[in-house]
Amino acid sequence: MSPAVDPQRVWRELDTLGGMSDAEAPAVTRVVFTETDLRARRFFKQCCEAAGLAVREDAVGNTFARWAGTSSDLPAVATGSHCDAIPNAGRFDGTVGVFGGLEAVRALQHVGYRPRRSIDVVMFTSEEPTRFGLGCLGSRLLSGALAPEAAEQLRDAERRTLEDVRRGAGFEGRLAGVAVPPATYASFIELHIEQGPLLERAGDHIGIVTAIAAPASLRVFIEGQGGHAGAVLMPDRHDAFLGAAEIALAVEHAARGTASPHTVGTVGVCDVFPGAINSIPSRVRIEIDVRDIDQNRRDSVLQAIAAACEDVAARRKLTIRTDRINADAPATCAPEIVDAVSAACARRGLKSQRMISRAYHDSLFMARVAPTGMIFIPCRGGVSHRPDEYASPEAIGRGVEVLADVLATLAE
Amino acid sequence: MSPAVDPQRVWRELDTLGGMSDAEAPAVTRVVFTETDLRARRFFKQCCEAAGLAVREDAVGNTFARWAGTSSDLPAVATGSHCDAIPNAGRFDGTVGVFGGLEAVRALQHVGYRPRRSIDVVMFTSEEPTRFGLGCLGSRLLSGALAPEAAEQLRDAERRTLEDVRRGAGFEGRLAGVAVPPATYASFIELHIEQGPLLERAGDHIGIVTAIAAPASLRVFIEGQGGHAGAVLMPDRHDAFLGAAEIALAVEHAARGTASPHTVGTVGVCDVFPGAINSIPSRVRIEIDVRDIDQNRRDSVLQAIAAACEDVAARRKLTIRTDRINADAPATCAPEIVDAVSAACARRGLKSQRMISRAYHDSLFMARVAPTGMIFIPCRGGVSHRPDEYASPEAIGRGVEVLADVLATLAE
Repeated sequence: MSPAVDPQRVWRELDTLGGMSDAEAPAVTRVVFTETDLRARRFFKQCCEAAGLAVREDAVGNTFARWAGTSSDLPAVATGSHCDAIPNAGRFDGTVGVFGGLEAVRALQHVGYRPRRSIDVVMFTSEEPTRFGLGCLGSRLLSGALAPEAAEQLRDAERRTLEDVRRGAGFEGRLAGVAVPPATYASFIELHIEQGPLLERAGDHIGIVTAIAAPASLRVFIEGQGGHAGAVLMPDRHDAFLGAAEIALAVEHAARGTASPHTVGTVGVCDVFPGAINSIPSRVRIEIDVRDIDQNRRDSVLQAIAAACEDVAARRKLTIRTDRINADAPATCAPEIVDAVSAACARRGLKSQRMISRAYHDSLFMARVAPTGMIFIPCRGGVSHRPDEYASPEAIGRGVEVLADVLATLAE
Repeated sequence: MSPAVDPQRVWRELDTLGGMSDAEAPAVTRVVFTETDLRARRFFKQCCEAAGLAVREDAVGNTFARWAGTSSDLPAVATGSHCDAIPNAGRFDGTVGVFGGLEAVRALQHVGYRPRRSIDVVMFTSEEPTRFGLGCLGSRLLSGALAPEAAEQLRDAERRTLEDVRRGAGFEGRLAGVAVPPATYASFIELHIEQGPLLERAGDHIGIVTAIAAPASLRVFIEGQGGHAGAVLMPDRHDAFLGAAEIALAVEHAARGTASPHTVGTVGVCDVFPGAINSIPSRVRIEIDVRDIDQNRRDSVLQAIAAACEDVAARRKLTIRTDRINADAPATCAPEIVDAVSAACARRGLKSQRMISRAYHDSLFMARVAPTGMIFIPCRGGVSHRPDEYASPEAIGRGVEVLADVLATLAE
């Protein structure tokens, strides 16, 4: 059986989806539960219904499009990803796994394949942490990694709770009902762009993911003393921004200092208060992201950052408080799924390499409830989270073909 | 003649004015040409008209309340300051000089004094750079230090021009008409809180300002490469925020390195793009403020900052562009006004010290069109540009008494 993938069809869908954005093209901004996000959700559901799939949504907006299997009482197979996008991002992160999952199902339908297990194409809610500060909201709740009571209390920048916002967006029911019962899924497989340069550099078509890195994120509040930028002499200052600057450089130093290329550390957010050219910053908030495939090594970086914060606070007489937003364990992909991806590549004559995912993915949490795997495809220059993020129709087509093969294997 | 200053009256006016704010009390946010700023302007004009002064506004909103002298054809004497406030500031910066100037006039009126020269109480527009990025807009235009054509093109964060905004706020006429003809003013004297700790530490009542420091400000645009915070390895990064962090620390180092306490350098603004926790910053804008009473020493700090920017750009492979917003010359106060302030202190038995102003003031520009002086009063803890900025009614009362004495001397 060789499924008939139509790369142009999924490309057109991704193009339509890319136009649903709160940023100027080609940039994509699609933040969870905005009107733009809701439009994208409607588009995905229409495409699924046109393919004859039965669509269901849970209380947090995770969307499941089911192709019923001949033994629909067996645990199902699932594939999927997310369609939300951080401010000024690109068109392919997440979306390739959602619409690619749908295309894989359509390709299997086209050749008359009937799955034994049901197959769910899933669009997860808010994989990106943009709005509520915590990523993978949908898959965290679905997998039980996030308590519903804690989720309800998450707030966006306007202090609105997730509970309030998701109900406003039309998602009713209790968040407690989002977690799936044990043995709901027999396996989960996610197609995604690599978001790094390794496949392109090696000229490989497919990345077979063996593990997903362990991410941690911190929010650091630095409080000093404000004052007039002209009047307060240098020795009398307790400038919160200079403290933040030193901490950011310490994050870089610690991430580079492990001597492993797998360790990365980033300060992506820095808000300065009051933020006037003639005012010494009195308060600064920074957000830090640290990842590694080795949890101990990652935790050693977190310790180095904590030590740097203590040193900066003492030396500059600042008050520094650190909130750990999350510190998740890494996930190992299921060997049988790694083998299935590998076999599909071999069958199709595709060049592949085994690799590690350093980005967050819904797979990190799905791995808690089912054997999980990931298929990576190359993206131009390894670029992601930017407007010039790009994966070719051919690369997407090849990823969908491998995905369809693996789904057929897993659903037997 | 001893004028009858009523500290409670000016205190009540400052209290009313403090309530006109876009921040929660006690914080004051009053940005030029907002509805709140226009309310404050109406209040000032009402108070002036109640004192029988003739109010006039120019095209940029500088407001002049004139007490006509017996020889009204002579160059006038002016006093005043500003009522706009940076975000989350206090109640006393600027406002003490505006309402204190009015109170000085009322006190002189009360004892039957008739000035020979006319006395103008002036409220200058936008001493703070908050909205248009350039401070002392009103006094720069009035003194001819800023070309009307350049002023028209200044834009706020929403890309609206000063020209557009000031007309929208009801200020008509041409900006070219704001500059005063030569010999309009015989002298200018500004009452202001010190915004530093020296008077309080010494237990002095009055600071007699002899010079105003030379401020310069820069806007630095740093451009690197964005990307996914999980996927781009550390050696492949060109993180714009880390570049900004190093530049900020270089500003501190350069300001401290002159070994003069009069040199100060501050990074008060830092905007990070795209500003997401899982995105490497691709673009950062910082704003730098450098001041010194010695223009050469200040310029050496600017050179050190430029060298640091070059080094950071080369080492991190970033593109760094620096716009000089302004680099003004310092001003020396007129000896005859310094003497008049000194004499008033002696007559009233007030403890005083001669000092330098390190903050920006409208006086810096008024010194270009008239002999100028400044009277400082202590503020608690030397704190300014913060909600807890405070000057006591007694301190304000003493400042107004000295101001009234000096106005009477200058108007003779």
